[in-house]
Amino acid sequence: MADAALRRGLTRAVLGVFSISMGIRQATANDLSSMWDIFRSIISAGDALPFSEQFTRETFQSHWFGSHTAYVAVIGADVLGMYKLGANYPDSGNHVASATYLVRPVAQGSGVGTALVQHSLAQARKEGFMAMQFNYVVSSNRAAVELYKRFGFFIAGTLPKAFRHKQLGHVDAYVMYRFLESET
Amino acid sequence: MADAALRRGLTRAVLGVFSISMGIRQATANDLSSMWDIFRSIISAGDALPFSEQFTRETFQSHWFGSHTAYVAVIGADVLGMYKLGANYPDSGNHVASATYLVRPVAQGSGVGTALVQHSLAQARKEGFMAMQFNYVVSSNRAAVELYKRFGFFIAGTLPKAFRHKQLGHVDAYVMYRFLESET
Repeated sequence: MADAALRRGLTRAVLGVFSISMGIRQATANDLSSMWDIFRSIISAGDALPFSEQFTRETFQSHWFGSHTAYVAVIGADVLGMYKLGANYPDSGNHVASATYLVRPVAQGSGVGTALVQHSLAQARKEGFMAMQFNYVVSSNRAAVELYKRFGFFIAGTLPKAFRHKQLGHVDAYVMYRFLESET
Repeated sequence: MADAALRRGLTRAVLGVFSISMGIRQATANDLSSMWDIFRSIISAGDALPFSEQFTRETFQSHWFGSHTAYVAVIGADVLGMYKLGANYPDSGNHVASATYLVRPVAQGSGVGTALVQHSLAQARKEGFMAMQFNYVVSSNRAAVELYKRFGFFIAGTLPKAFRHKQLGHVDAYVMYRFLESET
């Protein structure tokens, strides 16, 4: 679905209070093109991920289909967002999960991120992780910070000026953390 | 030099207040065996690094001779310790360095770690890094935490129970950070 058509679809859904049936499932090689498009649109904004536009599709593929497992949020075959989940460290650190969430820019603000985080927490519990950690949350990315806080993450650390924001220059990054024993 | 001989040498040095002439230089392929021995002795202790004894020499080599640059502290051709230095994140995060330091157990407490940290800070400044970050300092590793504090690092974050210590069970890990503009 083209972004414009998708935007019209979402607007219609809001106006008519349709309930869109969005699924979240493990990503396959067939999703790679859509996922790469989303990834590129996020990195070109330069406000959430450190990677530059020189980042290659091969490296992307190795990050998202390597030691971490990738999931996609789909309406039919249309990918609206995605996350990857895996251990943050090997061996003596492998009881702490980490995850990265990306929502297609045109679909942001419609609950896709919320669904992804919720799904990832359930998945992490299912896999037996004790806690989840985000290593590098850009502090100016308020939507993400607030989303994570809503799901029980706290700011475990502030990395001063650790991210060079495309518009804002050096901004802080947060390390965010939560235990998984309790449901949210 | 065998560990016993080394220990005798260090003891003699302390007794006689010899000044040992230790150099720090970039590591080469010739140092790999010594470095791997040090690495294995540290991971078998299970109190400082997350890696298990299943960690392979190939992965070690890729970590230490990949995107990071490795340095060794040597007396003659004998490797007493080592560190690696590189950007903690790519692109928009590549102004923050990260480093890992390992000192051969038998040589610990003799100033090798101090020399490595000092060298790495000078090297990081020379390479134009704005700050340095340690992502995962085991909180019970008091010698390391105190060493880093002495060099101006502060605890930017505490990751509760993020490390499974071989003796102590779950212990906190610290994220430590410092800017590099000032000399220490």
